[in-house]
Amino acid sequence: MTNTRIESDTMGQLDVESSRYWGAQTQRSIQNFPIGRDTFVWGRPVIRALGILKKGAAQANADLGELPGNIADLIVQAADEVIAGNLDDHFPLVVFQTGSGTQSNMNANEVISNRAIEIAGGEMGSKKPVHPNDHVNRGQSSNDTFPTAMHIAVVLELNERLYGAVAKLRDTLAAKAEQHKGLVKVGRTHLQDATPITLGQEIGGWVAQLDYALAEVRHAEKGLYQLAIGGTAVGTGLNAHPQFGDLAAKKYSEETGFPFVSADDKFAALSAHDALVQTSAALRTLAGALMKMANDVRWLASGPRNGIGEITIPENEPGSSIMPGKVNPTQSEALTMVATRVFGNDATVAFAGSQGNFQLNVFKPVMVHAVLESIRLIADASLAFNDNCAVGIEPNLERIQHNLDINLMQVTALNRHIGYDKAAAIAKKAHKEGTSLKDAALALGYVTEEQFADWVKPIEMTRPTI
Amino acid sequence: MTNTRIESDTMGQLDVESSRYWGAQTQRSIQNFPIGRDTFVWGRPVIRALGILKKGAAQANADLGELPGNIADLIVQAADEVIAGNLDDHFPLVVFQTGSGTQSNMNANEVISNRAIEIAGGEMGSKKPVHPNDHVNRGQSSNDTFPTAMHIAVVLELNERLYGAVAKLRDTLAAKAEQHKGLVKVGRTHLQDATPITLGQEIGGWVAQLDYALAEVRHAEKGLYQLAIGGTAVGTGLNAHPQFGDLAAKKYSEETGFPFVSADDKFAALSAHDALVQTSAALRTLAGALMKMANDVRWLASGPRNGIGEITIPENEPGSSIMPGKVNPTQSEALTMVATRVFGNDATVAFAGSQGNFQLNVFKPVMVHAVLESIRLIADASLAFNDNCAVGIEPNLERIQHNLDINLMQVTALNRHIGYDKAAAIAKKAHKEGTSLKDAALALGYVTEEQFADWVKPIEMTRPTI
Amino acid sequence: MTNTRIESDTMGQLDVESSRYWGAQTQRSIQNFPIGRDTFVWGRPVIRALGILKKGAAQANADLGELPGNIADLIVQAADEVIAGNLDDHFPLVVFQTGSGTQSNMNANEVISNRAIEIAGGEMGSKKPVHPNDHVNRGQSSNDTFPTAMHIAVVLELNERLYGAVAKLRDTLAAKAEQHKGLVKVGRTHLQDATPITLGQEIGGWVAQLDYALAEVRHAEKGLYQLAIGGTAVGTGLNAHPQFGDLAAKKYSEETGFPFVSADDKFAALSAHDALVQTSAALRTLAGALMKMANDVRWLASGPRNGIGEITIPENEPGSSIMPGKVNPTQSEALTMVATRVFGNDATVAFAGSQGNFQLNVFKPVMVHAVLESIRLIADASLAFNDNCAVGIEPNLERIQHNLDINLMQVTALNRHIGYDKAAAIAKKAHKEGTSLKDAALALGYVTEEQFADWVKPIEMTRPTI
Amino acid sequence: MTNTRIESDTMGQLDVESSRYWGAQTQRSIQNFPIGRDTFVWGRPVIRALGILKKGAAQANADLGELPGNIADLIVQAADEVIAGNLDDHFPLVVFQTGSGTQSNMNANEVISNRAIEIAGGEMGSKKPVHPNDHVNRGQSSNDTFPTAMHIAVVLELNERLYGAVAKLRDTLAAKAEQHKGLVKVGRTHLQDATPITLGQEIGGWVAQLDYALAEVRHAEKGLYQLAIGGTAVGTGLNAHPQFGDLAAKKYSEETGFPFVSADDKFAALSAHDALVQTSAALRTLAGALMKMANDVRWLASGPRNGIGEITIPENEPGSSIMPGKVNPTQSEALTMVATRVFGNDATVAFAGSQGNFQLNVFKPVMVHAVLESIRLIADASLAFNDNCAVGIEPNLERIQHNLDINLMQVTALNRHIGYDKAAAIAKKAHKEGTSLKDAALALGYVTEEQFADWVKPIEMTRPTI
Repeated sequence: MTNTRIESDTMGQLDVESSRYWGAQTQRSIQNFPIGRDTFVWGRPVIRALGILKKGAAQANADLGELPGNIADLIVQAADEVIAGNLDDHFPLVVFQTGSGTQSNMNANEVISNRAIEIAGGEMGSKKPVHPNDHVNRGQSSNDTFPTAMHIAVVLELNERLYGAVAKLRDTLAAKAEQHKGLVKVGRTHLQDATPITLGQEIGGWVAQLDYALAEVRHAEKGLYQLAIGGTAVGTGLNAHPQFGDLAAKKYSEETGFPFVSADDKFAALSAHDALVQTSAALRTLAGALMKMANDVRWLASGPRNGIGEITIPENEPGSSIMPGKVNPTQSEALTMVATRVFGNDATVAFAGSQGNFQLNVFKPVMVHAVLESIRLIADASLAFNDNCAVGIEPNLERIQHNLDINLMQVTALNRHIGYDKAAAIAKKAHKEGTSLKDAALALGYVTEEQFADWVKPIEMTRPTI
Repeated sequence: MTNTRIESDTMGQLDVESSRYWGAQTQRSIQNFPIGRDTFVWGRPVIRALGILKKGAAQANADLGELPGNIADLIVQAADEVIAGNLDDHFPLVVFQTGSGTQSNMNANEVISNRAIEIAGGEMGSKKPVHPNDHVNRGQSSNDTFPTAMHIAVVLELNERLYGAVAKLRDTLAAKAEQHKGLVKVGRTHLQDATPITLGQEIGGWVAQLDYALAEVRHAEKGLYQLAIGGTAVGTGLNAHPQFGDLAAKKYSEETGFPFVSADDKFAALSAHDALVQTSAALRTLAGALMKMANDVRWLASGPRNGIGEITIPENEPGSSIMPGKVNPTQSEALTMVATRVFGNDATVAFAGSQGNFQLNVFKPVMVHAVLESIRLIADASLAFNDNCAVGIEPNLERIQHNLDINLMQVTALNRHIGYDKAAAIAKKAHKEGTSLKDAALALGYVTEEQFADWVKPIEMTRPTI
Repeated sequence: MTNTRIESDTMGQLDVESSRYWGAQTQRSIQNFPIGRDTFVWGRPVIRALGILKKGAAQANADLGELPGNIADLIVQAADEVIAGNLDDHFPLVVFQTGSGTQSNMNANEVISNRAIEIAGGEMGSKKPVHPNDHVNRGQSSNDTFPTAMHIAVVLELNERLYGAVAKLRDTLAAKAEQHKGLVKVGRTHLQDATPITLGQEIGGWVAQLDYALAEVRHAEKGLYQLAIGGTAVGTGLNAHPQFGDLAAKKYSEETGFPFVSADDKFAALSAHDALVQTSAALRTLAGALMKMANDVRWLASGPRNGIGEITIPENEPGSSIMPGKVNPTQSEALTMVATRVFGNDATVAFAGSQGNFQLNVFKPVMVHAVLESIRLIADASLAFNDNCAVGIEPNLERIQHNLDINLMQVTALNRHIGYDKAAAIAKKAHKEGTSLKDAALALGYVTEEQFADWVKPIEMTRPTI
Repeated sequence: MTNTRIESDTMGQLDVESSRYWGAQTQRSIQNFPIGRDTFVWGRPVIRALGILKKGAAQANADLGELPGNIADLIVQAADEVIAGNLDDHFPLVVFQTGSGTQSNMNANEVISNRAIEIAGGEMGSKKPVHPNDHVNRGQSSNDTFPTAMHIAVVLELNERLYGAVAKLRDTLAAKAEQHKGLVKVGRTHLQDATPITLGQEIGGWVAQLDYALAEVRHAEKGLYQLAIGGTAVGTGLNAHPQFGDLAAKKYSEETGFPFVSADDKFAALSAHDALVQTSAALRTLAGALMKMANDVRWLASGPRNGIGEITIPENEPGSSIMPGKVNPTQSEALTMVATRVFGNDATVAFAGSQGNFQLNVFKPVMVHAVLESIRLIADASLAFNDNCAVGIEPNLERIQHNLDINLMQVTALNRHIGYDKAAAIAKKAHKEGTSLKDAALALGYVTEEQFADWVKPIEMTRPTI
């Protein structure tokens, strides 16, 4: 039989397992929201952010004389354990709860209160000496704390998880681009043969996309520095010390190293989460860039004999349960699947973000969850793709040269010399007759052999100096 | 100087150009909603459906004794002109107006009233002998008429525009599948070489997708037979004769040949448009199927020398303004662009469809517009693709045979005889050494020459009998 | 130190923990795809479906003489343990892996092989007497088995989880509709006061939406009965007995009670998952219907004093961490958040579904995961909403009557008697002067007191007989 | 009978109406792409941008000695007519064409060539003295020109259409916020009564959202300054003078006043359009902000008697064709419908943007069309909303005061003084018994009358100083 203690809130009493720090409101939420429990319990990023939130709030309140120093110290001590991850098991709630995240805010209040009481040698559930509402939630409302925690969680995940992972892949690709900057190959537009490029240029295009997308995510991150804290229930800051928002934000900056501030307009900060929508959109752009790159990689590696086959990628696993010897571009597949998921998450975020009413948007939990999931998936998949695919991309030199040799689109170099119409006639003739470009050109008499050799140099076509 | 006459409504009087049949409410809408005027004025399908709507309503009201026969006759006469398209210039309103479509309903009421008055020799704007509200709108509200017109418009466009266009493409492809049912070629999975299929099987897969998607659109269409008519303002049917909804629906059936009925639950019929959402979703599935087919076509036609090149497609235009002789899969490009547009339209429809409140969804115009646009684009693009691409798809026999000859995945046929592991070893050896499958198989001693010939027959691999 | 055994595949050997049944390919996937591990490991529905898949395949192969009876029996025995859930810990793979689900198919092959070997007293990893490929995967390829498992998983979840949960909510609402079918209240269109309806009619509109959406999900389910099984690697069925697909599907029908068949066109069944896209779309329509209902509920319950307040909902938890006494519509919030998630999942599914190439769509895992998540969330949230909100919805009779009494839109009943223009004048006068409709009507002299009493009867306005 | 002349391209000759300046390739496109012709013909922004593009290219080529001065002058003269809008009728092509926009690029080349020939007194169709490819398209490819025109078109539309329109609405709202900064009213969270705010604060939240969203659109615009020009067919710049890209971009800057440059990485500039995706996403955020505001407006204006009714909005038209005297929030409806359309357009743009292959993304036309449509719709609807709704928003002072007087959530002000639990008890008692907060507070004995008066001052609750 499970040991329980009695916890209470404004609606009455109920039993909670003795081993758990949470209180009545958390317990009610467990009972009332059995939705997607297997996979939608909050993870580390949000729990940690709630710890940071409560710690800084207690410090700010203490500085402002709103909390006795000893109470604040107890809260800080318990909050530090939340931050460290020691109390994750005491955060049992799922995403699909109150749309303001009230129950997760109360979960943090209750756990910190009870743990602080325990540290102080008090009786859990007694709310003495540390009351979940009057002390831990001092000067706060779910309506400003939860979105504050959302921003803190996302900023930390972007910096600690996403940027490094994507940059690692980006750097691998940039090194490959540099390595192959002189390797001439066929370009392709409309999936059709086109004028030559270098493999370095091709890969460099992917790098440029990643650079742009990462810069856009970093730009969106700036919007997240604006915190709702200080707005309390409706944005006016009722019941909070007038300097509380600014000071709490300063504490969060000190704790995390990021320049958080109390939002300029806290009415907007509670009723909309547009900076999160923008972050999600930038992640979608990043996912789109990754998808384009991953698609190029698998097409370039297609074959082994009946595809393009201009690069090879690592063989990480047997490719087929029925076709022996087949090696598939599985990392591209995982990464492009992640991209479709990020697109879907973004659709959720933007839809939810548009549905605020009056002083509150009540789609907060689903929004932050989707953004955090996108960050996690992009980061994980980028690392996996880097380690298991990108680092091992190698040109298939023989195939590349062969393809270049038979390509007709070098004819474009003749436009400047003999005009578009004649150049087109040469290409058509070669195509129709299955001959080389040079043979067709000479047969038509539009150029001499010497001119052809002078004018049609694939490597020069990739670094035109005219 | 423009000649004007005075028109009036419950808010007062205002001037309307004498040459126009519309009245005060239409005129107000023109002035109040100058939004996207260049491209969002209602087209034929909605105007025609409004004509059908008003004609049948007048007939039903006359049969029920709710309208004098001569008034009804005048309305029918004017509505027939709307149906025929003679009065399209008198429907100047755009999609972005009242969310119930009230102003377009009134536009129809006003135009029919004034045209009927004109026929009767009366004075336009006098509302005598045919009043736009009391007669033309008799027993109706925008809230039930506009969604009724939405359904009629979509059902007609599906039947008159979509099905035939997509079926034409489907039949072209089915004929190609039949024609090439014995043409063995390389299959591809994960973009990698796989065991053989016939070109007929490959094309047949596209046909099967189109058949499924079309059937799903036809299924969704059934939901559109349920009309809001008879619900009037909130679904109760206040001010309409109790038999009006059923009888009007019967008139629409007679007029159009489709089995329209008055909706079982008219409260849902006003406050949600889920049958339209489902229709949009089925169109999205159709667009997805077309995208897959169009992508396959352009990849199979890629080259001319450095792609897959197993089929050729018609050369319809010069492909490049700079690369002479290039021919691009432009019909695939147009069709896949249409697919992305249909996906976007569907996102609009589903979002809008979720936003009803109480007894009304006020996103009606944007929903029907998006669905009609999707129908039009799919139909037009399917026909263009059919006429300018699909009919001219031809196998490149030489390339197909070459690719098949060098393919390693026929090794799969050996699994049954020598086991997966040995078969895999053969494929790997051939791949590594660049030899044929047969050479590798014999070198490893896993099969005899006779066995290889017996067991590895590409054509039989496409029609396995074991 | 962990005990390990050696497992091997065509790429070589590697160590696996002795306590685990999986083999080399599963182990490689763990190492190569560390993507979203916390939340994206396959759950019961897919694992169970893989068990059903392999059991039926073994039975069919045995019947066809393709597997020795004793081998088949061992496979069946092990597969039954997979079905029962005893071996869930041996399915460690995540969604983001090979896009064909190859590694999860191999995971099933390996676990069943090793468990069968164990039952037979053999040595795990030896592949004797039960080989993961040659026996468990007999006549199969990931390309046909994984989509088969996808369909089985979704059909079972729809039937065992979704339908009952949503029907429970639907029935609660239907009972409320019946209970309040005579309770007259204000209707609302454009958020504005409108003519009366009954609370039963209002709730009945929600029921009608749920009925339609459920019927559409059930319709989409039919498409899922078509299984890819029998197509093997590219759709031709190479290496499978010609009757294998049909017979395996028959086994699945017997095991599950659903009328599965081998797909008419197996090329489409591998390269597209349009029935899954359609299922996702129908779930989106269902989510949209739930969102509309949940929004209506929270608006009708808004207040307590400054909203509409015509219904009350259960007080399940303290509403605010700062505003005492506040009770919020938290179940509506959870349900509408679920709706936005389902919309996002559907975007993922449709996008992924459009991206097939040639003989394979390699977005299979992400598609089935998203559909299963949507099912789970809708089901869980519907039950939570039902149990914690819908069952406790009660009319606030006093408020309903008050609102009805002051409503002006009953004026509409006068249209038939005095015409639209005069009726409008009455309403405008009452609105402007803040009087009752009756007072305004009499003051204008358009009706007598007796006429007003005769013509304006709210209850009759909800059940018009003219 | 129509007069025609013969035009030719590399595929041969065909007839063009004499009155038209276009040539063979435009004519082919008309015939090959009859897709959505009614509404998808390019409008002013793209045609004008093509004119700017060709003018600057000719100037740059002339400066670089790549074109004779007189030829360049003729091109500039004709291009100026394109810019001015004189030749719009000669741009008949639709969005759904070649995915690179090749045919629209050729349309510009042909029209400018023929018009220049005409100016020079030559024979149209002769390509002398101004050749569409060799002169007008000098140093260019569709692959770099069309995306250049896309960026120019969007930048101009943002600046000339969007910013001013949204700013006008923003300024109207900001003025309303300032005007009502002291007007205390009920706040609302979870749709439930909450602590007081001022109407100015409420409206100010909308303004803050618009400011943020506009700033994000402006940020995204910066990405559009990077032009593909100079990349020609695959990004290498083959056939263009090495300084051509930079110089042409400089010409565009001079012509338009925006700081365009030739893109840092032209491989990315051809194969992806991520800056356009980001622009679309920022427009979506803006649409979401507008939707939230428009929803608030219609809810605050709901009634007239049975809604919230705290503001009034202009009566622009009769609201109902059946319910006399009804005035609906039609501008909110049009604006929120626009928002759903913008969301759909954005889905199209992001999907299309992810589908590039190798050196080209062939979804260019559909992307720019959707972004331009979103800009147009947001701009038009913002102006309409401003002029016909926002300017006329007025507080309903009587209702606001009444609602405030009966509100219970002022109890929150007591938290600081008597603790959350006692404050909650007061609110619950008042709610249950239907009394005022003060009565309940005194009855419970938790505060004195004097304390209540001191502590519960709504206006002070909106500007807390503690």
